[in-house]
Amino acid sequence: MESRNIRLAVIPGDGIGTEVVAEGLKVLEAVGTKIEPTHYDLGAARYHRTGETLPDAVLQELRGYDAILLGAVGDPSVPPGVLERDLLLRLRFEFDHYVNLRPVKLFPGVETPLADTPAEDIDMIVVREGTEGLYAGTGGVMRRGTPHEIATQESLNTAYGVERVVRFAFEKAKSRPRKKLTLVHKTNVLTYAGDLWQRTVNRVAEEFPEVTTDYSHIDAASMFFVSQPERFDVVVTDNLFGDIITDLGAAIAGGIGLAASGNINPERTAPSMFEPVHGSAPDIAGQGKADPTATILSVAMLLDHLGLHTEAAKVEQAVADDIVDRLAGWAGRTTHEIGDDITARVSG
Amino acid sequence: MESRNIRLAVIPGDGIGTEVVAEGLKVLEAVGTKIEPTHYDLGAARYHRTGETLPDAVLQELRGYDAILLGAVGDPSVPPGVLERDLLLRLRFEFDHYVNLRPVKLFPGVETPLADTPAEDIDMIVVREGTEGLYAGTGGVMRRGTPHEIATQESLNTAYGVERVVRFAFEKAKSRPRKKLTLVHKTNVLTYAGDLWQRTVNRVAEEFPEVTTDYSHIDAASMFFVSQPERFDVVVTDNLFGDIITDLGAAIAGGIGLAASGNINPERTAPSMFEPVHGSAPDIAGQGKADPTATILSVAMLLDHLGLHTEAAKVEQAVADDIVDRLAGWAGRTTHEIGDDITARVSG
Ligand SMILES: CC(C)[C@H](C(=O)O)[C@@H](O)C(=O)O
Ligand SMILES: CC(C)[C@H](C(=O)O)[C@@H](O)C(=O)O
Repeated sequence: MESRNIRLAVIPGDGIGTEVVAEGLKVLEAVGTKIEPTHYDLGAARYHRTGETLPDAVLQELRGYDAILLGAVGDPSVPPGVLERDLLLRLRFEFDHYVNLRPVKLFPGVETPLADTPAEDIDMIVVREGTEGLYAGTGGVMRRGTPHEIATQESLNTAYGVERVVRFAFEKAKSRPRKKLTLVHKTNVLTYAGDLWQRTVNRVAEEFPEVTTDYSHIDAASMFFVSQPERFDVVVTDNLFGDIITDLGAAIAGGIGLAASGNINPERTAPSMFEPVHGSAPDIAGQGKADPTATILSVAMLLDHLGLHTEAAKVEQAVADDIVDRLAGWAGRTTHEIGDDITARVSG
Repeated sequence: MESRNIRLAVIPGDGIGTEVVAEGLKVLEAVGTKIEPTHYDLGAARYHRTGETLPDAVLQELRGYDAILLGAVGDPSVPPGVLERDLLLRLRFEFDHYVNLRPVKLFPGVETPLADTPAEDIDMIVVREGTEGLYAGTGGVMRRGTPHEIATQESLNTAYGVERVVRFAFEKAKSRPRKKLTLVHKTNVLTYAGDLWQRTVNRVAEEFPEVTTDYSHIDAASMFFVSQPERFDVVVTDNLFGDIITDLGAAIAGGIGLAASGNINPERTAPSMFEPVHGSAPDIAGQGKADPTATILSVAMLLDHLGLHTEAAKVEQAVADDIVDRLAGWAGRTTHEIGDDITARVSG
């Protein structure tokens, strides 16, 4: 890695995706890394122009990169699911991003919508499974458009898939001061899948005696995120529950504008992919209104993943400092301006 | 209905279920109705004693009642899912409770965990589908306990099942001042089911030109419940998303101690069933700590369903008044005391 530049594939995608990724790259450059970015114009525009979402040849090319930075995917002009399934989810599946890592942390100075909640009460990390469950895409429809239509969706869960992400979550919990792992599921209704998840957690727990384990149904967990966020340290959960709970997590930790994520392939058999939790937000696209902070924090996760820990810490610190200054009346900046301000801090 | 007593089946169930139901019945009696309750000892105790969850003969008997009042079901001594599936969900399915009606309303004086949110911003009603989706219970497991285990869960969605609940939701929206209906789903991932739900909403919308329709993905909706609850008036959603979002709704509207629900069979081909949203809470059972208000508000919904609108309003007002007095330092009351106080108000 030392002798050659780090190769980064950049997929800005749709809507505000392009705007926030530009700022993320600015920060990446300013922090002084030997990272060489290559852009890929995947997303709605390409789909309309050529009908392609993710051509096999491009997928093969992407496999050769050290990491991927993605903005956001999805546009109202494309039928729901096309870009999500054939581009974003395909990347997660093909590159075996079985860990979708989503920190939920309230930065000092950020306002949470929760009253009377001290910043230290919101400090968890959600380990969302990224390759199975209801995201498998299996299911179908019969007699579409008739009064006798039936539409199904199937959640696929394997011992292989569950154990590896649970094991990752235990390792993560072990590395944190509180060493607590909460499984979030709905074992009382999704009895087959829930049983697999719960048994797996129980079994792997024996190898991690220093980690306390806990369980919460997804409905109760949603409530606790709001009423008692301090209950959670590391959360492990399936793909769909993780999707829901990390948006909720973003909301309590000051908003989707700050929520970063990494789609991780821990064995590094394919590039990991970093992206803000937010979507393409077509309603505010092109107006310079998007907060690039989530992308910039995703860049910090990317740097960490690549072993560039000093640079990662520098970016995180710059964001933390920028956030403190927002309180002092720095609101109302454009996407560019926020990017510039954080860039200035990492260069300084 | 006038000439004979109204027949009510009462299923206190497990944990705090028995405690809160006792208070609900006290209020029901005090408000002066000709309602004659019959108790059924279904739940964990009976399961352990006889192995029965819901014997067919009991199910048949229950069918003859005008309504059912249920406390809560579930106990750690019973494997997860047994009582939930074979008792609670079986009742919902057998009695075709396709509308699970869950108001999310902040009573004046109740503290919400959300900062800076005026009470009038939280006033919605969730219409949760109650008989389909992932609650169908279909799925299975292969090679259980081996490294090659696979566990599946299937979401079943029919035009018949979706249209009737969507239609109910539109009627509900039409009857409210804001006349706004939001579909909550995950159409970009659950493409088959999402397509059925979205098409159904679009089609039925044509019959309700006065109702504004909107759409939100479940992940975004979870965020908006916290950051912009005023977005929502009537929400229609599937069984699992409805489960999650109504617990979240309870959290923002002052806690699970206040959240009421009705499992409604709108055609009255079988008795509807009313229950607090909260569970059996084994950790605080038998200690007089449970708030019976959710059950008492469920009793108000029950009265409304039976056409006893004056009595329903009286119970609701008593709860509203009781809540205002909580602010004046009436905290720390036992389950009994809260029940007594509300009873005194409806008798007065
Ligand atoms: C866009 C969508 C397919 C995606 C998901 O559901 O995973 C998004 O919501 C996310 O959380 O990254
Ligand atoms: C106990 C459980 C089966 C039930 C559900 O999931 O519907 C409960 O959470 C509810 O919301 O009524």
